[in-house]
Amino acid sequence: MSNVVRNKWREEFSKWFDDVLENGEFYDYGRYPIKGMGIWMPYGFQLRRRIIELVRKELDGTGHEEVLFPLLIPETLLRREKEHIRGFEDEVYWVTHGGLDPLDVKLALRPTSETSITYMESLWIKSYKQLPKKYYQIVSIFRYETKSTRPMIRLREVTTFKEAHTVHVSKEDADRQVQEAISIYKKIFDELGIPYIISKRPEWDKFAGALYTIAFDTIFPDGRILQIATAHNLGQNFPKTFDFKIQLEDESLDYPWQTSYGLSDRVVASAIAIHGDDIGAVLPVNVAPIQVVIVPIPGKSVEFKTILEYSRKIESILSNEGLRVRIDDRGELRPGAKFYYWETKGVPIRLEIGEKELSNNTIIVSRRDTGTKTTVSLHKLSEKVRETMDSIMENLSNRAWRFLRENIKRTSSLREAKEYIESKRGIVEVPWCGDEKCAYEMMEYIDAKALGTPYPEDDRPVNEKCPICGKEAKHWLRIAKTY
Amino acid sequence: MSNVVRNKWREEFSKWFDDVLENGEFYDYGRYPIKGMGIWMPYGFQLRRRIIELVRKELDGTGHEEVLFPLLIPETLLRREKEHIRGFEDEVYWVTHGGLDPLDVKLALRPTSETSITYMESLWIKSYKQLPKKYYQIVSIFRYETKSTRPMIRLREVTTFKEAHTVHVSKEDADRQVQEAISIYKKIFDELGIPYIISKRPEWDKFAGALYTIAFDTIFPDGRILQIATAHNLGQNFPKTFDFKIQLEDESLDYPWQTSYGLSDRVVASAIAIHGDDIGAVLPVNVAPIQVVIVPIPGKSVEFKTILEYSRKIESILSNEGLRVRIDDRGELRPGAKFYYWETKGVPIRLEIGEKELSNNTIIVSRRDTGTKTTVSLHKLSEKVRETMDSIMENLSNRAWRFLRENIKRTSSLREAKEYIESKRGIVEVPWCGDEKCAYEMMEYIDAKALGTPYPEDDRPVNEKCPICGKEAKHWLRIAKTY
Repeated sequence: MSNVVRNKWREEFSKWFDDVLENGEFYDYGRYPIKGMGIWMPYGFQLRRRIIELVRKELDGTGHEEVLFPLLIPETLLRREKEHIRGFEDEVYWVTHGGLDPLDVKLALRPTSETSITYMESLWIKSYKQLPKKYYQIVSIFRYETKSTRPMIRLREVTTFKEAHTVHVSKEDADRQVQEAISIYKKIFDELGIPYIISKRPEWDKFAGALYTIAFDTIFPDGRILQIATAHNLGQNFPKTFDFKIQLEDESLDYPWQTSYGLSDRVVASAIAIHGDDIGAVLPVNVAPIQVVIVPIPGKSVEFKTILEYSRKIESILSNEGLRVRIDDRGELRPGAKFYYWETKGVPIRLEIGEKELSNNTIIVSRRDTGTKTTVSLHKLSEKVRETMDSIMENLSNRAWRFLRENIKRTSSLREAKEYIESKRGIVEVPWCGDEKCAYEMMEYIDAKALGTPYPEDDRPVNEKCPICGKEAKHWLRIAKTY
Repeated sequence: MSNVVRNKWREEFSKWFDDVLENGEFYDYGRYPIKGMGIWMPYGFQLRRRIIELVRKELDGTGHEEVLFPLLIPETLLRREKEHIRGFEDEVYWVTHGGLDPLDVKLALRPTSETSITYMESLWIKSYKQLPKKYYQIVSIFRYETKSTRPMIRLREVTTFKEAHTVHVSKEDADRQVQEAISIYKKIFDELGIPYIISKRPEWDKFAGALYTIAFDTIFPDGRILQIATAHNLGQNFPKTFDFKIQLEDESLDYPWQTSYGLSDRVVASAIAIHGDDIGAVLPVNVAPIQVVIVPIPGKSVEFKTILEYSRKIESILSNEGLRVRIDDRGELRPGAKFYYWETKGVPIRLEIGEKELSNNTIIVSRRDTGTKTTVSLHKLSEKVRETMDSIMENLSNRAWRFLRENIKRTSSLREAKEYIESKRGIVEVPWCGDEKCAYEMMEYIDAKALGTPYPEDDRPVNEKCPICGKEAKHWLRIAKTY
């Protein structure tokens, strides 16, 4: 039965997601009078805040230093790196006036911060002794999207852009930093139970100004693929542009090497969307604003006040253990309505307390992910709640990873690849010679987008021919319907 | 002696502050290629972050809900309240282009958010049952300042604007909310040892669109006055503009009442500036990014490694107690240089550990605020550090409050007031009839600005004449040189 239920929300996922954001009071979208900009509501804000703290913990713990740069970047600065500005030119919002006065130099709302950060680094960093240097900031970025916008996924103001920027003495150090970024992102997504595949983006889809781009993609409930993080080895491009040289150990001067890597609101979107079901969201336990909700249920032979007292006692036991607990003591709502209210919002555990529980000194523990209910005695409650939290997290992660794996298909038949994507979306992997033109023809045939090639690289030979040109294939190319 | 030392930094305060921000690595200012915009450096960022957490704690603990609204406000929305836009018109940055396309409606970088928040509240709030509602956000705001800018104090991008916005059923509730805001701000400033006087701003200086404005001002080391927080009863102005009505208890419809209150980067500036001395900053203990720095000192008869081991043991004892501790094990710097380095940055406590301390199982505890050194035995260290932290905080707060009080002068002689402000700045209180014209003439004579009248209002009669018109004075009017 649970499968039937789960299919329905997947089929209507786009509407499901909009409804959950609104009914769950995460994010108000579509009513603010600028397209592509929404409001983080209190409940959504707390989820976002906890995810940010998780990101901070991993970055601070690996020697990254948090900074905050100005939002505005002068046109002159942004245009210094030619390839970079070409990548963003059509998407930049420009400030042209201060008060009634036109500005001498137009100011861009930051689309990303490589240019402004490199410019300041050229003033701060003079010697190899100061390296590696790893900065990050969590800020709003702006992109004048012409594609259709979606809440949290494709926005004109991305309000939770975590961008890291690092400086190194050599290409090898920069490569190693990309590796560190990958392992940090793995940890973060693992903690949220968000499954991912890692690809090296094709040349034509790498970051504007980078040597190469490694990307994390996840699968959404409708089978579409969403990019959730990227890491770039930027080479020496930006330092060359900004005449940023450092003294090396042998006292010669050279341009340093850089990387940058980022993630965004899409991580919050994934935490809400990926684990859901027909009723609503199911939040990862460690970032859920409310981990346990207590619903006292009126009885016939006991005063509600007495049940409420027992509930409060349980609330304080769990709060004292550092859990985020809420008691729903609203008088005007029936228990069923309360159940539904908190289920939509994705609270992982519900405790139900009625007259039977009161007289037996027990509690009903109900799991949001499976719907399972267990009765436990009061002295075992803490243990049971902890255990259930772990078990929910494991279950969410497992079923999300299973869904991802079940939706990847490797095939050397283009027609099969096309039919697979048409019938269920997901990801296909097809043999590829490495030629850009062949990839474009495959994308056109399948009517989907190339994610790139598996990363880290698979050493085993492909042993297939490129279906377009017939030459020996060098890679498997991942192709999918993306957001 | 300590007074002589302290006078020097006060006399050259403007340069002192710029130097401390730069040498202490708090904030990079004046090198970013846009006037009035700077960069929070890692050390300054951590201080800022802890102050933000302090603010959040007080707001969350009093039922405020954190949200996040878009940065951009359409011109049509911002212009709805006429008085409000007049107050900001000359200072708004306008976005006019997305990519190469001109926008249909110009977008303002938020100067403050009353208009966008009221607009959304009119969609969210329908009934008195939902009230009171207290939102806040911590965001960047932008003002195209024509006055000369100063780091953290007068910026074109204010990066740490905490703005709270509340909705109520009646004027009395809104008045009470202003009271709550005042008590929250008192707590925050008290925790940072920042002294303040509270004034009701004169009519001509209240917030654009408000019934009245209450402001917190502090005194800077040079005797100038800095506004550090304001709270406004906004009346029903914005709801009227946005046709925002709610159902009252008697089922009639009426406009709700609002307040708003804010503070900014200036709180961080005050925490750095106010407690300083000739050497540099002295940070309030509870928000200092590093509370205790350990400096191991090489000796003649013991290997440095052994001293370092003892130091690390002490580091781990204090870290385990939740203190923020750093050990300075840099080989290339002499102890004196390390002392100076951490003193500039304002670390409240330094532990010195040399061969004598090693062999006696003792530690030298040195206070940043007084320079006092005490030797304690290892088993008493934690207690001594805690005690010293409290004592530093008390001392910082006391001496800052003393400085404020010593720089307020009440006089009915305009000449004396003028001479007082000329010789030492500070604040003068002069008798005032309440007439705007008289206030302007007094400000012109004294060559300073009116802060307003004491708040809460002093019931005792003034018993003096307004020195301009000779009529009976209703208030004492505070006048000062402000930032």
